[in-house]
Amino acid sequence: MTNQDLSSAANFEQADAELFELLRIPSVSADPAYKADVRRAAEWLQKKLSSLGFTARVDDTNGHPVVYAERLDAPDKPTVLLYGHYDVQPEAPLEEWVTPPFEPTVRNGRIYARGSTDDKGQAFAHVRGVELLLSQGKLPVNVKFILEGEEEIGSPSIIPYLKAHAEELKADVIVISDGSRFAKDVPTITYGIRGLSYVEIHVQGANRDLHSGSYGGAAPNPINALCEIIAKLKDDKGRVTIPGFYDGIEPLTDEERRMWGSLPHSDQEFMDSIGVSALSGEEGYTTLERIWGRPTLDVNGIWGGYQGEGSKTVIAAKAGAKVSMRLVPGQDPERITKLIQDYVPKIAPAGVKVEVLDHHGGQPMKFKTDSPYIKAADRALNRVYGRGAVFARTGGSIPIVAAFADILKTEVLFVDMGLNEDAPHSPNESFAVEDYHNGILTSAYLLEELGRE
Amino acid sequence: MTNQDLSSAANFEQADAELFELLRIPSVSADPAYKADVRRAAEWLQKKLSSLGFTARVDDTNGHPVVYAERLDAPDKPTVLLYGHYDVQPEAPLEEWVTPPFEPTVRNGRIYARGSTDDKGQAFAHVRGVELLLSQGKLPVNVKFILEGEEEIGSPSIIPYLKAHAEELKADVIVISDGSRFAKDVPTITYGIRGLSYVEIHVQGANRDLHSGSYGGAAPNPINALCEIIAKLKDDKGRVTIPGFYDGIEPLTDEERRMWGSLPHSDQEFMDSIGVSALSGEEGYTTLERIWGRPTLDVNGIWGGYQGEGSKTVIAAKAGAKVSMRLVPGQDPERITKLIQDYVPKIAPAGVKVEVLDHHGGQPMKFKTDSPYIKAADRALNRVYGRGAVFARTGGSIPIVAAFADILKTEVLFVDMGLNEDAPHSPNESFAVEDYHNGILTSAYLLEELGRE
Repeated sequence: MTNQDLSSAANFEQADAELFELLRIPSVSADPAYKADVRRAAEWLQKKLSSLGFTARVDDTNGHPVVYAERLDAPDKPTVLLYGHYDVQPEAPLEEWVTPPFEPTVRNGRIYARGSTDDKGQAFAHVRGVELLLSQGKLPVNVKFILEGEEEIGSPSIIPYLKAHAEELKADVIVISDGSRFAKDVPTITYGIRGLSYVEIHVQGANRDLHSGSYGGAAPNPINALCEIIAKLKDDKGRVTIPGFYDGIEPLTDEERRMWGSLPHSDQEFMDSIGVSALSGEEGYTTLERIWGRPTLDVNGIWGGYQGEGSKTVIAAKAGAKVSMRLVPGQDPERITKLIQDYVPKIAPAGVKVEVLDHHGGQPMKFKTDSPYIKAADRALNRVYGRGAVFARTGGSIPIVAAFADILKTEVLFVDMGLNEDAPHSPNESFAVEDYHNGILTSAYLLEELGRE
Repeated sequence: MTNQDLSSAANFEQADAELFELLRIPSVSADPAYKADVRRAAEWLQKKLSSLGFTARVDDTNGHPVVYAERLDAPDKPTVLLYGHYDVQPEAPLEEWVTPPFEPTVRNGRIYARGSTDDKGQAFAHVRGVELLLSQGKLPVNVKFILEGEEEIGSPSIIPYLKAHAEELKADVIVISDGSRFAKDVPTITYGIRGLSYVEIHVQGANRDLHSGSYGGAAPNPINALCEIIAKLKDDKGRVTIPGFYDGIEPLTDEERRMWGSLPHSDQEFMDSIGVSALSGEEGYTTLERIWGRPTLDVNGIWGGYQGEGSKTVIAAKAGAKVSMRLVPGQDPERITKLIQDYVPKIAPAGVKVEVLDHHGGQPMKFKTDSPYIKAADRALNRVYGRGAVFARTGGSIPIVAAFADILKTEVLFVDMGLNEDAPHSPNESFAVEDYHNGILTSAYLLEELGRE
């Protein structure tokens, strides 16, 4: 097989028209009013995949359905499971959209529509990538699609679904395209995600709210105590102080630090983009290293006492905070949760009772950058962009990836087609037409390259 | 004049019946639905005072009216201004009342009704005290009453009223009975109140909420920053760290420390009463010293980020807290507010913007315990209780006292008749019948004793 350029065979015009059809279906999973539309999007995809010779089903769950399709043409070749989601974020605030969210419109080379990049555009690029290969003959690998309708509401049905269909979903590698490349013209392969430990700290002082005049100076104040606890969780070098927190962490390799250091990142631009005059974080690491490769602790919410207008002189009976820790390979979420549960009572000031509730966790993961799958993706991207991919990690946590690892025991390959400027989840979400077309080619080439391994 | 026991002349039966009449008027100042009732209570008092030979008026304000009455029988004697309030707290939660809040009911020697102790019972004890003296002849001093209807909503009309009537309200001493004695059988004279500086701290991080996966570890977190700031405002000895905070404070005298040390106070009982296992506060001071005689800093409210159910991985754009400092004589609220406004930006971590808004302040005050007025009160209480008064301060701040000092240039004498267990502001507020009757005698004897100075 040669490295044939398939772009002339891709029929982008039809690919665009079909994507627009899909984007017109308002498959908002969070809003019960759109329930029938969510199913309509699933059925639309099932029909499309059937037309490509796939065995395709719409499987019911307790929530929105899952589309499953397979075409197993290549007995001796690897099996590739393509994951995506056809549900979209709510469109609110509607008044900020320049053109209606469910009426795809092209302006300045971009398709504006809810779901254009997240994830209908990227998921459908794989459908069209498969179609492109089929237009040239048989598929070079066995292909399975799993397209869910609940990703934007936390995928509540996917774990039971994966468990029930584990045998059917068996694959050599899972491909996900549901994110952003590092920058325009920079093909990106993401090979690691951070994990998560998320707890809620409750601090109880007196058995009732107290008058700060009658008690202030002697009664324990749970808000002050909570602030003290939180302040003690990090030192002045930005390191988390929980004993054992850093134990077992795989240090960043010289290769990673070199690789990330060479990426087109500017701290000044980063600061400007979020409107701050300085960054914070762990001493001794660059911004990308802090976000992609190091663990951290952030308070995500805090409350206690009087939050209304004006002044009220109350010593609250209780206060609370939500605290999450992003974890890196070598850290186990359950162990970290246990560590903070042990530590907080030790640093709490006298007179208050504390409780640390476990919300949920997620495993940090890192895949080898020299795996045959990643090498195949790198070759595929090189054929599209004329340059090799950069190897990034992401600071986020993607629970579905851990579920794939746990239940299907299968590695994930992230081949993102979007850009941060696509503004997923925001009004005026868009997807560059060029990125969509490159995504179709990327998908086709990736399946070809995976067929060569 | 001898120390005649007037209890047999007091006609307590009639005094009870009249108080019950007043308590049946639901004069809730906070609720517009009760507006007419508030006025009805004012008119009831005006009528009662007129019947005692007072020149009595109901004066309109922008809010609820003020009752003013005077009877100036004693040209060469001091003039005593008796302050009280006839409005009451809302009755909610109604379902927790054993008997209806506006149907006074005696159980176990206590009058249960909204306003029984706060402040109708205590204010009306003075009316009956005056009546008792009049039953014996002329009044031994000149008496003025100012009874307001907005104390429970922060006395918004009282300052303009005092300013407009400053000449008419001139007095040698102002008597307030609107609080609690230190303990049962312990007559108490309060000779000092703490002041207040109340600020709101706002911390701004990024220009929008950020995803803690994509930014966590590098972007400033305003909640963590706020906690750090708050934790730094006090050291591990419970002292406020704001430079200059303690400058100029009058130290507690040996006499005060001895006097308070001899009061029947138990830390264990204090802790039990609020359900905590340890107290906090400034090292080197007892609980009463901490509350009555030392300044402190308490966070009264805090907020930021996600406060709902479950978990959300957000780095909030902003966070805030309400912080109040109780002040003692020697500290000026405006100066202290300025100090914290200067200090917070200095201790804020890099990358966040902070703002410290000034809410309001109140002057700390302390009156001499050897003033002739306090001596007269001590003698009066001795006649009622058979023992001298204890000299307490209060940890609270009473803005009306500063207004009296500022506008009328007159010292205040606190002669509290209630007890903490009366539960003012709570359901099932009550006032011991014995305390009400002793209050009537206290008022009569106090006016007699003030007439002897």
